[in-house]
Amino acid sequence: MKKTAMAVAIASVTAMAAQAGTVTSDGADIVLKTKGGLEAKTADGKASFKVGGRIQLDYNSYDGVMNAVPGKDGSDLFFRRARLELEGHYSDWGYLMSYNLIESGSIDQLHTTYMGFGDLAALTFGQQKEDFGLEDTGSSKWITAMERSLPANAFDTGNNVGAKLHGANDLITYSLGVYKQDIDQNNDLDSAFTARFVVRPMYSENSLIHLGAGYTTRDGKFTQLGSRLGVRGGESGSGAGRIRSRYTGSAVADELEAWNGELAGSFGPMHVMAEYFDGEISGANGAPDIEADGYYVQLGWILTGETRTYKTAIGAFDKIKPSSPSGAWEVFARYDELDVSDTDNIAPVQLIGETGNTLTLGVNWYANELVKIALNYVHAETDEKIGGEDDGDAIVSRIQFAF
Amino acid sequence: MKKTAMAVAIASVTAMAAQAGTVTSDGADIVLKTKGGLEAKTADGKASFKVGGRIQLDYNSYDGVMNAVPGKDGSDLFFRRARLELEGHYSDWGYLMSYNLIESGSIDQLHTTYMGFGDLAALTFGQQKEDFGLEDTGSSKWITAMERSLPANAFDTGNNVGAKLHGANDLITYSLGVYKQDIDQNNDLDSAFTARFVVRPMYSENSLIHLGAGYTTRDGKFTQLGSRLGVRGGESGSGAGRIRSRYTGSAVADELEAWNGELAGSFGPMHVMAEYFDGEISGANGAPDIEADGYYVQLGWILTGETRTYKTAIGAFDKIKPSSPSGAWEVFARYDELDVSDTDNIAPVQLIGETGNTLTLGVNWYANELVKIALNYVHAETDEKIGGEDDGDAIVSRIQFAF
Amino acid sequence: MKKTAMAVAIASVTAMAAQAGTVTSDGADIVLKTKGGLEAKTADGKASFKVGGRIQLDYNSYDGVMNAVPGKDGSDLFFRRARLELEGHYSDWGYLMSYNLIESGSIDQLHTTYMGFGDLAALTFGQQKEDFGLEDTGSSKWITAMERSLPANAFDTGNNVGAKLHGANDLITYSLGVYKQDIDQNNDLDSAFTARFVVRPMYSENSLIHLGAGYTTRDGKFTQLGSRLGVRGGESGSGAGRIRSRYTGSAVADELEAWNGELAGSFGPMHVMAEYFDGEISGANGAPDIEADGYYVQLGWILTGETRTYKTAIGAFDKIKPSSPSGAWEVFARYDELDVSDTDNIAPVQLIGETGNTLTLGVNWYANELVKIALNYVHAETDEKIGGEDDGDAIVSRIQFAF
Repeated sequence: MKKTAMAVAIASVTAMAAQAGTVTSDGADIVLKTKGGLEAKTADGKASFKVGGRIQLDYNSYDGVMNAVPGKDGSDLFFRRARLELEGHYSDWGYLMSYNLIESGSIDQLHTTYMGFGDLAALTFGQQKEDFGLEDTGSSKWITAMERSLPANAFDTGNNVGAKLHGANDLITYSLGVYKQDIDQNNDLDSAFTARFVVRPMYSENSLIHLGAGYTTRDGKFTQLGSRLGVRGGESGSGAGRIRSRYTGSAVADELEAWNGELAGSFGPMHVMAEYFDGEISGANGAPDIEADGYYVQLGWILTGETRTYKTAIGAFDKIKPSSPSGAWEVFARYDELDVSDTDNIAPVQLIGETGNTLTLGVNWYANELVKIALNYVHAETDEKIGGEDDGDAIVSRIQFAF
Repeated sequence: MKKTAMAVAIASVTAMAAQAGTVTSDGADIVLKTKGGLEAKTADGKASFKVGGRIQLDYNSYDGVMNAVPGKDGSDLFFRRARLELEGHYSDWGYLMSYNLIESGSIDQLHTTYMGFGDLAALTFGQQKEDFGLEDTGSSKWITAMERSLPANAFDTGNNVGAKLHGANDLITYSLGVYKQDIDQNNDLDSAFTARFVVRPMYSENSLIHLGAGYTTRDGKFTQLGSRLGVRGGESGSGAGRIRSRYTGSAVADELEAWNGELAGSFGPMHVMAEYFDGEISGANGAPDIEADGYYVQLGWILTGETRTYKTAIGAFDKIKPSSPSGAWEVFARYDELDVSDTDNIAPVQLIGETGNTLTLGVNWYANELVKIALNYVHAETDEKIGGEDDGDAIVSRIQFAF
Repeated sequence: MKKTAMAVAIASVTAMAAQAGTVTSDGADIVLKTKGGLEAKTADGKASFKVGGRIQLDYNSYDGVMNAVPGKDGSDLFFRRARLELEGHYSDWGYLMSYNLIESGSIDQLHTTYMGFGDLAALTFGQQKEDFGLEDTGSSKWITAMERSLPANAFDTGNNVGAKLHGANDLITYSLGVYKQDIDQNNDLDSAFTARFVVRPMYSENSLIHLGAGYTTRDGKFTQLGSRLGVRGGESGSGAGRIRSRYTGSAVADELEAWNGELAGSFGPMHVMAEYFDGEISGANGAPDIEADGYYVQLGWILTGETRTYKTAIGAFDKIKPSSPSGAWEVFARYDELDVSDTDNIAPVQLIGETGNTLTLGVNWYANELVKIALNYVHAETDEKIGGEDDGDAIVSRIQFAF
């Protein structure tokens, strides 16, 4: 009987070999993975490669103050993001290439990281996130609402070319970096210093308390502080409306300074997160400063019981992995506010909207690990009328495939 | 003896393991494939990934009416297409990213598909083919002649952003979609509705009869109907000549409507295919309509005996797989005609060429599954002289690597 | 005992199968490899695929004549190159897609090669290197200094669209090609013929003597001969300074002719290489010719004992593979000179710098097979002052990840 079993085992191996070719490695053992993308890593952890990407297709419809031409209704079907992403590592060095396919192609992130000092002191060189704020540091694939909050947008540092020292363990995450303009020179940044520190007083599989603070100081050419009112897209020549305080004429600021505080908790299927931002641009040649501050509070509940994953390496939330083949369902509410009114509305400063807020209610269906279908309702209000309108409503929706 | 055989079997496995590393999956069993590109799919069919691309390098030489500067000879060596393509699926959702590398990069296709309703009702969202016409719906990699026919070019819908419901079984293929302008806004399309229906009264491995019809109605800004005379490329400032009916000045049409009929048969190494197109653009603000119609008939014979493959999912022909290591040889002839003369040649309409036709004779060498070498002779005639010329000849050739 | 061993062998195979999925091929046996990128090839050699790329992030600081605004100090942090590269082959045909990610994307190389005539007669069609000069034919990833020498830059043929016959064995490497303008039409090349011949009187694992000669003749539109003074980058509106002889006004040359000689030796950890270039552009419509010539000599020593690898297929040096986990260290010195003074400095010709030379001293750390960290000191001198300066110094550094 034993012999027979062995014979069967061998026969089955042989049979398989007959009907299918073998796949071997010419060096270290390799572990493969495919879920729409492809991932290979050596079993000894020395090398890895991953190809992936993201597609976000949005349909929006909005009215009132949310349209760049207030009072006019707007709607748009457009790709919010489309990226091809390659990453990997060999020995102590890693890299990331993230390329924007839309708008004729541009570099999203492109960097290499030295990991030889261990998890608490990695060095990343190249175009990268500056890591300022919880919502902004998390991937655009796995933020809860479709768009980040008003203050996170107003103080978004973007991805810039520089060097960042960063590290994390279960308790803390930190980053310190210096940067200059992005590769495609889409901003007028001369230099920036940005730091962030996060501590997790509680951190287990199902429970998290996250406290964080960030600071950035930036030299360059700045002309305004503000944000779109919760939506993107819009027909050409139109687009989504903005609340902002900006210089008219040739006045300009040569410095921007901002700080923020982060608070988040995740307990089983529920999470709460909130951030406060405060900053200003310092007018050059006698131009007045422009100040802005704002906050958001967000509550989310995953009806199907999953917990948001969290990446200590960046100190931010990550994907939701549905535990059922029919996917995971999440509902959430977010209220945010941005106040740019702390300057007189006289030349060379022009206030638009003064203070704006949005309430976002949404439902997300995570069809599987790669696919998120989002439907958000957004109600926006402004303190001062813009083009005769001081509120607006939007329905925004997204199909996302992130492999 | 038996024991010895077993021992040998085990020893050989062990030996191989000693000289080469193993490759395993961390989840479902994976089947790999490489033929210049790379493909991975799980054995359970739940996930897949594929990276591929196409390179088409053309050399053309033409004279007479085929040159944009009629009477001048033209020749060009250029890349007709160069694309990087990623596709895959996970569970019920799939995606395709096809990126044009030439001309600084642009999106060819970018979409995600929900396949949960089965093969007869798939939903594709994003930039995609509209599926109008047999020649146009088939891949540019595997059309028989190097360029599509005059009427297929005149009524080419391009790839646009929208949503398409489509399905197929062995008997039928259908698609219904609504679209707007492509991502890069290279056209002035406001909205389009396009439908196609194909039936296969006969369909087996070696025999096919294909009948199809399509319809499209489009709102936007249109200024002409016409087509290049069979060739592409051309020195800058010159290029290939066109037959067309177009508005002069500021006249414009705000609607385009077209339909077509498709007929094809494939019997062993021979195929015949023909299409008829009829359409018009409707002048706005009192501008007259512009009408066009045309057809082509094509006969092909694979000398080495292979049969053209056919994809029911899109209802169109696909690649030829050579059965011999020395490749497959195909000869073909195509006659096409486009008539844009059904309007008076007075302002604001300008007729160029009135009616044009081309006769294309060609030979294709499918060196292997990935490589096609094409040599076409094209003779073009127009009813009315363009720049003193009413006919022209071209030799066009291509090296194609499609992995 | 024997049976037990067998049983254990089978049990271990079975156990592995239980905890990890299998990876098989649906055809020929496949060998996989990952070192940051991914490579698959069939064991029978019939097909292969490879995805890789390169990231070069530079930081420069320079003064004196090396700045485009002489006398002004300059410094820059920028990506020198960022490319995504796909290559593969199937049966007798291969391809390469190399795409520049920076500056909105452009094609570096894009070609297909017929290999059916064997290693001594390959035919490559598409955008490719013309192979003129030892330093230029080698990959930008594995040249010793960060930038190629002054004369190699002055006579750089770039990558153009054409057809090249090329071949190699252990003794010789040759290439003969005809070309036209690159895809993106960044040059005014009408046609070019370029040839190179290399012979290796000595060639073993640790010893190499390389002798080569090249010739190119080019029709098109040329307005100058010259080179940057050893550095790249620079703030916008500034950039690195150049030595050159150029036409002022509308004078132009319609022909360029150049030849070069190559000499290199590699003995264990030491290498020496030298090249001489001589060429001229022939003024059209009575404009005078402009001549230039130059040379460089380079000495390198790998302190850790490795030998530079060498590719006979292209007749050029390639990567250094560190034999120790702590990487390989290399020091080198290069002296180069470019003389563009052989024309009177009167209209329509303007001489800038007349003769320039640079001395480059550098140290390279090959952290592993993929990562090179370079630090170069460059001292430049010119015969004639440019903006009041006739020398300058630079510190240039690079982090390179090439997977």
